This record gives sequence, C-alpha cells and structure tokens, in this order.
Amino acid sequence: MKSSRIIIVGMGQIGTSIALGLRRLKKIPIVGVDIKPQNLKIAFRRKAISRGFRLKRDRDLLHLSLASQDLIILATPVKSVESYLRLLPQGPLIIDVGSTKGAIVKVARRRHLRFIGTHPIAGREKEGAIAGDPQLFKNRLCLLTPLPETRPEDRKTVRQLWRSLGAEVELMESGKHDRWLAYLSHLPHVAAYALVMAIGRLCGTHDAVRFAFGGLRDTTRIAASSPVMWADIFLSNRGSIRQAMVRFKKELDQLAGMIERGERSRLLHWLSLGQAMRKKY
Amino acid sequence: MKSSRIIIVGMGQIGTSIALGLRRLKKIPIVGVDIKPQNLKIAFRRKAISRGFRLKRDRDLLHLSLASQDLIILATPVKSVESYLRLLPQGPLIIDVGSTKGAIVKVARRRHLRFIGTHPIAGREKEGAIAGDPQLFKNRLCLLTPLPETRPEDRKTVRQLWRSLGAEVELMESGKHDRWLAYLSHLPHVAAYALVMAIGRLCGTHDAVRFAFGGLRDTTRIAASSPVMWADIFLSNRGSIRQAMVRFKKELDQLAGMIERGERSRLLHWLSLGQAMRKKY
Repeated sequence: MKSSRIIIVGMGQIGTSIALGLRRLKKIPIVGVDIKPQNLKIAFRRKAISRGFRLKRDRDLLHLSLASQDLIILATPVKSVESYLRLLPQGPLIIDVGSTKGAIVKVARRRHLRFIGTHPIAGREKEGAIAGDPQLFKNRLCLLTPLPETRPEDRKTVRQLWRSLGAEVELMESGKHDRWLAYLSHLPHVAAYALVMAIGRLCGTHDAVRFAFGGLRDTTRIAASSPVMWADIFLSNRGSIRQAMVRFKKELDQLAGMIERGERSRLLHWLSLGQAMRKKY
Repeated sequence: MKSSRIIIVGMGQIGTSIALGLRRLKKIPIVGVDIKPQNLKIAFRRKAISRGFRLKRDRDLLHLSLASQDLIILATPVKSVESYLRLLPQGPLIIDVGSTKGAIVKVARRRHLRFIGTHPIAGREKEGAIAGDPQLFKNRLCLLTPLPETRPEDRKTVRQLWRSLGAEVELMESGKHDRWLAYLSHLPHVAAYALVMAIGRLCGTHDAVRFAFGGLRDTTRIAASSPVMWADIFLSNRGSIRQAMVRFKKELDQLAGMIERGERSRLLHWLSLGQAMRKKY
C-alpha cells in the first residue's frame, strides 16, 4: 500500500482489530478516530494506533486535512458510514466494513468518491476497542463490492489490505451482497432476537438462565450482539430483509401446518431435507 | 438401585450413553434392545451392555419375561415410547428419556403403570450407539415428571439413577414440562430447521456452505438433529408448540413492523431488551 496515513474511523471491535493487524505488518502511521475517549485510550495503550483523534461532530473529521494519499477506513455502524460519505472529500481512497452496501454505494457514487465497500465476515458479539484482535480476520471471508468505476489499482490495494490481515477476499456485486446477506446473516439475527423475546414472555430471566439448554444457547448466541449495529443493519437493508422474513415465515407456516394436521411422513421428508442441507454447511 | 436387570430399549445416543455410564458404576446386567443389529453390535463391542436383544415387532419385548425387579428405560423416539407403554406389564418400574411428556403420561396413568417420565437435557445432533458417551449427562439437568401416584421409593430410585450418571435432577409437573420445553427447546429447533429451509430456497447447498458464517452456523446447528426424533416431538407436543410458534411469529411481526416503518428508537429499545436477556443466559 502506498498510503501515507491510514485513518480508521470507529475504534470498536472491527476498527481496533484492523489497526492491531496492520501495526504488526506496516510502519504507516495509523490515526484512530472515535467519539468515545475510552476506545481511543484502549487502542492507544494496545499500540493499535499512533495517534488518537476524538470526534465531537461528524464534520470534525475534516480537521484531519485528508489528502489523496490517505486511506480512510470507516468502521462504524452503517448509518454513520452514510453520514461520513456525505461529507468526505473526493481525493482519498475510502472503504467501509459494514454488513449492508446498497444505501452507502448510492451515496458514494452520487458523490463520485473513490469508494470500495468491504465486508469482513468476522466479529463476535462483543463491543469496543477492548474486543480488538489482530487475528480476527484470519481465514475469514471478506467480500469486496467495488463500484463499476473503481480503478483497478484501488481494488488491488484493498484486496492486499485484507489479504495481509489473513482474510480470503471475494468480489460481489453490492445488490447481490445485500440480498444474500439478508438470508445468510441478517435473518439468523432476526430469528435469534425474536426467540429471546418470545422466551422472555414465557418465563423470567432467572428461569430462562437455568433452563437455557445447549440448543437454545447456540441458536440465540448472536442476540447478544450490539443493538446499535443491528438496528442500523436492519434499517439499511429493509427491502431484502423483508423478503427473507417473508420466506422464513412461509417455511414456519408450512411446518406449523404439517404439525397441526399430523402429517408425519411429509414432516419427516421436510426435516430430512433440512438435516441434509445443514449437515453440508 | 435394587433392580435385578436394567433393560434399555433403544440403543441410540442416549440409550448407549446411559448403558456406558451405568456399566462403569454397577454390576447389574444391562440388556440392550434395538431394532437395528448395528446398534446392538456397537453397544456390545463398547461393553455398554451384557446382552443384546433384537426386536422385530414391539410385542417381542414381552419375550424378555419382564418382572417387578426389572428397570425398563425407554430410550426411543416419543411415538415408540407410547406404543411400548401400551403393551408393557404393570410390574416393573419404567422410565423414558423423551422430550415431551403429556401424551405418554396419559397412557401410563390409564394403564396404571409404575412410570416416571425423565428428560435428560443432553444429547448432540448425532445418532446411534456410536455416539454414546458415558459423560453425556455430567452436570446436565435431568427433569423428572413423576405421576401423582408414583411411590416415593421409585422416585428415589430414579433420582439416584440420574445422579449416578452425573446429572442434576429437578422435578416438574408434566404439563408445565411440555409448555416450557415448547419454548426452550422445540421452538429453537423449529426456527433452526425453518432457517435452513429458507436459505435453501435462496442458494444452492454449495453456496450456502461457502457462505455459512459463524452466526448462521450456530443458529442452525440443531437442524442437523434426527428427523425421526423431531417429527415425533413436534407431533406429540403440537398444542404447546403451536402456542410457542404464535408467540414467535408475533415477535417477528413486531420486528418486521419496526423495520418497515423505520422506527429506529423503538427498534433500538427492542434489540437492547433482547441483548440484555440473552447476555444473562
């Protein structure tokens, strides 16, 4: 990478993990930006960043005198990525790390930014700089959604960045990305949150804890994820999530119908199909 | 335990795990019963049982000349437990290990059997004697649903049996058992199977495998469970499962509504509630 600085906006789990990984590999200065002094303090103490910059308002970002040689990594929830893309200048190469691309790609194209969407499929249900881990992306998939007008050398830079962090890189058109992620990631989160809420209506937390069996624990693990992050993902990908939920409810209704009518052999067939598919994951 | 023999019907994962655990502790003969010679062969080779008895029809069980000193453990899917309870004699103490109790308790009471429902909350998404593990029940909960007419000494015997296998024992009324399990175990299975099926409609298995991210993997793990076992559970607890599914769909609809209408602050509140509950599991 030929960047003179790497500026990471959002020193949460993902931003700090990127910073920690890059610091081990390169001597380029990394500026960490966050609204929370706590995240900057931790990131600095962990030697993830060479400098911390506290943001009070989005516009403060411009005080960093961004230049074409800078690489800007937006590692904030999707809604904030949109806001930053509305005010960033056209010179520097910008990437994000968010879970939905449709809305932000629109803004980036309209503003003629040098933008490439990236989505590392990593991250645990933990928050903040404290959860940063330089190994977080190792052997994980990172989806890249370049714009049609993206320069080949920028694509190469971003691809190398993620490879250097240990990720396997794959290109995907941003619309397809959102449709697929709605099923493969957003829908499981929808189901996990709704399960926890449904169980909360049955019994108090105390009992849920005592009787939270293995299956329930696994099925709902991701409901412990950040509400801010997931509210933004749900809202920014609402069209595709609506479709995925409709499909999910159709499957639920079909299952409910077979149970209700006592159709054992159809039920067996349906469950066997599900088991066979799951066993291949 | 004062039994002269322990007869385990169904040498699958649970039956074989019980046999392996008891063989380590006691010198009592254990007779393994199954319709599959393969399970008996493996159980015998693993020294789980002292004798194997192959069943061709349910009634063959009576060839074992069951006596009051025998303890019979029905470790088959719930539907078969019902069939066996219809033909077993009134002498011996009988327990099952199934996930629903309402239907079988009815049969046992009508036939005045010495029956205690037991439900070890253990088991993995694996099948057969090969999956048997003497440590399977260690530190796991085992729910006991004795009948009102159960003798205290029988309850004690069964309690000791499970404690000797390392389980923590808790009593629960059979109706409450089924209502709670519908939410805490059956509903997560419903959701996991329906997720896998919904995703199967989006993309072929090949792609689902490549993109089966951590969250999806965990959320759907239990969809790899036995279709026969789960068809029986779903059918034998349909009333409570219907209620749990209605509640689940209400939560899904509420979530879908908030997303659709872009109600970010309500959504945040709802997700935070879910996160807080899940974090306590």
